[in-house]
Amino acid sequence: MHPDTPQDLTRRDFLHTSMAGAVAMALAGSDALLAQSDRDAVVAEIARQHDATVQRLRDWIALPSIAAEDLGYPQGAEFMARLARDAGFTRVDLIPTKGKPGVFATLDVGAPTTLAIYFMYDVKQYDPKEWSSPPLEGKIVDRPGVGKIMVGRGTTNTKGPQMACLAALHAFKAAKQKLPINLLLVCEGEEEIGSPNFGQIVFKPEVEAALRKSVGIIIPLGNQSLDGSAEVNLGAKGIVELELASSGEKWGRGPNADIHSSLAAHIDSPVWRLVKALDTLVKDDGHTPAVEGFFDDVKPLSPQLKEILEAAIPRRNEALTKKALGVQKWIADESWHDSLVRLVSQPTINIEGLVGGYTGPGGKTILPHRAVAKIDMRLVPDMTAKGTLDKLKAHLAKHGFGDIEVSMTGGYDPTSTPPGSRLVEAMVRTYKKQGVDPLLWPRLAGSWPGATFTNEPLKLPAGIFGMGHGAGAHAPDEYYLIESANPKVAGLDGAVTSYVDLFYTLASPA
Amino acid sequence: MHPDTPQDLTRRDFLHTSMAGAVAMALAGSDALLAQSDRDAVVAEIARQHDATVQRLRDWIALPSIAAEDLGYPQGAEFMARLARDAGFTRVDLIPTKGKPGVFATLDVGAPTTLAIYFMYDVKQYDPKEWSSPPLEGKIVDRPGVGKIMVGRGTTNTKGPQMACLAALHAFKAAKQKLPINLLLVCEGEEEIGSPNFGQIVFKPEVEAALRKSVGIIIPLGNQSLDGSAEVNLGAKGIVELELASSGEKWGRGPNADIHSSLAAHIDSPVWRLVKALDTLVKDDGHTPAVEGFFDDVKPLSPQLKEILEAAIPRRNEALTKKALGVQKWIADESWHDSLVRLVSQPTINIEGLVGGYTGPGGKTILPHRAVAKIDMRLVPDMTAKGTLDKLKAHLAKHGFGDIEVSMTGGYDPTSTPPGSRLVEAMVRTYKKQGVDPLLWPRLAGSWPGATFTNEPLKLPAGIFGMGHGAGAHAPDEYYLIESANPKVAGLDGAVTSYVDLFYTLASPA
Repeated sequence: MHPDTPQDLTRRDFLHTSMAGAVAMALAGSDALLAQSDRDAVVAEIARQHDATVQRLRDWIALPSIAAEDLGYPQGAEFMARLARDAGFTRVDLIPTKGKPGVFATLDVGAPTTLAIYFMYDVKQYDPKEWSSPPLEGKIVDRPGVGKIMVGRGTTNTKGPQMACLAALHAFKAAKQKLPINLLLVCEGEEEIGSPNFGQIVFKPEVEAALRKSVGIIIPLGNQSLDGSAEVNLGAKGIVELELASSGEKWGRGPNADIHSSLAAHIDSPVWRLVKALDTLVKDDGHTPAVEGFFDDVKPLSPQLKEILEAAIPRRNEALTKKALGVQKWIADESWHDSLVRLVSQPTINIEGLVGGYTGPGGKTILPHRAVAKIDMRLVPDMTAKGTLDKLKAHLAKHGFGDIEVSMTGGYDPTSTPPGSRLVEAMVRTYKKQGVDPLLWPRLAGSWPGATFTNEPLKLPAGIFGMGHGAGAHAPDEYYLIESANPKVAGLDGAVTSYVDLFYTLASPA
Repeated sequence: MHPDTPQDLTRRDFLHTSMAGAVAMALAGSDALLAQSDRDAVVAEIARQHDATVQRLRDWIALPSIAAEDLGYPQGAEFMARLARDAGFTRVDLIPTKGKPGVFATLDVGAPTTLAIYFMYDVKQYDPKEWSSPPLEGKIVDRPGVGKIMVGRGTTNTKGPQMACLAALHAFKAAKQKLPINLLLVCEGEEEIGSPNFGQIVFKPEVEAALRKSVGIIIPLGNQSLDGSAEVNLGAKGIVELELASSGEKWGRGPNADIHSSLAAHIDSPVWRLVKALDTLVKDDGHTPAVEGFFDDVKPLSPQLKEILEAAIPRRNEALTKKALGVQKWIADESWHDSLVRLVSQPTINIEGLVGGYTGPGGKTILPHRAVAKIDMRLVPDMTAKGTLDKLKAHLAKHGFGDIEVSMTGGYDPTSTPPGSRLVEAMVRTYKKQGVDPLLWPRLAGSWPGATFTNEPLKLPAGIFGMGHGAGAHAPDEYYLIESANPKVAGLDGAVTSYVDLFYTLASPA
């Protein structure tokens, strides 16, 4: 998933899940029975193909594409295209962009319903030294209480879940069963740098035209927590990632190269300047954004979303969440309830990183010529990435910090999907079919570039979907669950099944 | 030299030097004539030993001792002891400390005058990737307009100048000339981490007793700028180097490990907390210390030092200094004169480095659990390192930032040496003998641990001394000048000569 989808973090809050009551199969009539038998034939193939699927995933893990390092291009796109072809997509095109190529693929079976699927073939950077097994090896190890996991960069973010989705198609092929819906695959290779060229893929005329005919778009993810619960989000915050750089060169004061720190007695410091500029961005409470006009476009939660939120909050466990996050107190010592309302509804300005001058062990007596703060701002409707960036720039200029360079490195608008859409309804129904009563949640506090689909001009429903589990996105020892130790949590085969079932569910409206 | 001695920075201000008028040798009588002939015999040996001296320096460069990395111990101390023995010191002791061992050596020729010499055998960290030739190779390259330079870590800071000092002793040996003074060598291996255990060397009873009999202590340095000028400092600022760390663990708020940045909506940020704490340390002008009581012990420059400063300022060149430092404006747009007064007289709080969260290329959407500011504070008399550190801690506590960890990594009090001391007088006289009219300067804005000698209980004069030139201390491509392209700037042999002459000068009071 996206850098900003906190799947392995917020997901760790061990949602209470109503597992009581088996799911009643409300099938009636011969068509339904036939469909059930077809479905069983497909599902039976999943286990038979298990080893092949694992090997295919491992091959993919071995070939990282990392846009920030210009590593694995165009090989990553070509491999992605081959994976799509092997899974049964009939038309598979590489889509050139100003950055890294995307892939667009179609599988038209003449069904009345079309589902779009979003893939990313790129992965986050990694440092092998921090890993317990080589990050490109895809080693399968046993994790007590979790099960057999595959450790590797991209296993959960997002090659594992995507491979589960492709394996569903392999299962249909092996079972010689016709897909119940048509599929579109829209794939990019720059997700981890903020999808700067994704619009060039989505709005290519034939891609856009094809997407318009779909019921919406899913983003495959191992969506289950370790207690088996899953969440269906009706949107996600937007994000602006940026760097604020203070430098002697731009400022016209201070040095234009690092100089000896004794000179701080009569030469200005670009680092202090950065501190002073940063200080104006949030209030003294250390979190409330203080950028002028930052809240102007913040729309309160709708009554419908409020209702959904209030229904969901009692299902979330404060103590387990605090423990999992290593947190003792919420902002302003708020209650769990108020803190969750804040999480869903408030925009943020966060410092991801500070880097300036000497950053190694010990000290070094320099007056640095430059310092950088890496910032992300999370946006709620109706804030926009561009509008918020402009406000930040205007704020800095107004406070006399117009020389601080603002470089946006990625971002997009908030995304929302109507709770009553056919896609959301089908996702909920499919989870229930797997025995999971999903938590309907108004808005992910993280971000994914769904706005490309949910905003004008497409206005498609879009949502993250998938049984299964993984963790460690962007971190060392990232993993994806292959064989689960807990029957409530799907392993790889269960994840594949969830995609098979989603396709069937979409084909037979409730 | 010390991390804080900005030899290659402030020294680059190309002091105007009165080269007019050859130095008159005011020698009279047969003793003086005899001394002159002895001296010439010694100096004649310097050129003969040139290649051996270069090789000895290169061998030393090849063996770095870096306390911050625990590299090269005890080998560095043992090598240092061997160098001292080879140069003629008769008693050479390794002095164990709680950290790295020091070396104490004596060479008693029964002369009435004893000079102490300070050495450091450790060097600063380095990253070979940043160097144009391997930092331990000591490669000699030609730098147009400068001459043949030796490139390597520690060449100018401070193995090169120290080797020049030792080579002076080799020259006396080779010329079979008796040293005109007795020598003491006090050497440490932790200078680059702030000399935390230096007191255990200096105040070892027999070392302290020996030092009490000396006229003072010199610190060898290639003290010439590229125009040939040299400076005699009558003191130096003190320093406190420290780290300020904000963390969720200590704070009891925010996370205790990096978590997904979306959670910044309801979890406090230790990075923002660091920014807010830092903001209180200096005024909104971005430089004036705002720590309560910071200026309480600041003593104005004495009338004598003011006079020395006013005499020196007209000899310093603003345009060349600005160019060399890459600086367009002084703090508060002050005049050159006022800016130099500020440089000499004002204490500072400088940020050497900021490091927190994600510091690599691009962004990473985390809410970091910890952030650190590396700080140095420069102290003027009568501030003390301990007192200033205490004030900083009290300030943070008073402003509600008592959880911010303050870790002092090194530092010492300011140091001052009386302008009329025999050592200062001899240094000035020796420079003049080399054809350089040195700039007498009230106080180095940088720091060196002279307070150990100049404060109670020893109260010895102490000063940096040496002809010659080097640059790049702590930086890549550090170098020391071996053969000068400019007759006004001494190469290695000229530097050796300056120590020979200092010894003779000290033996014959003005």
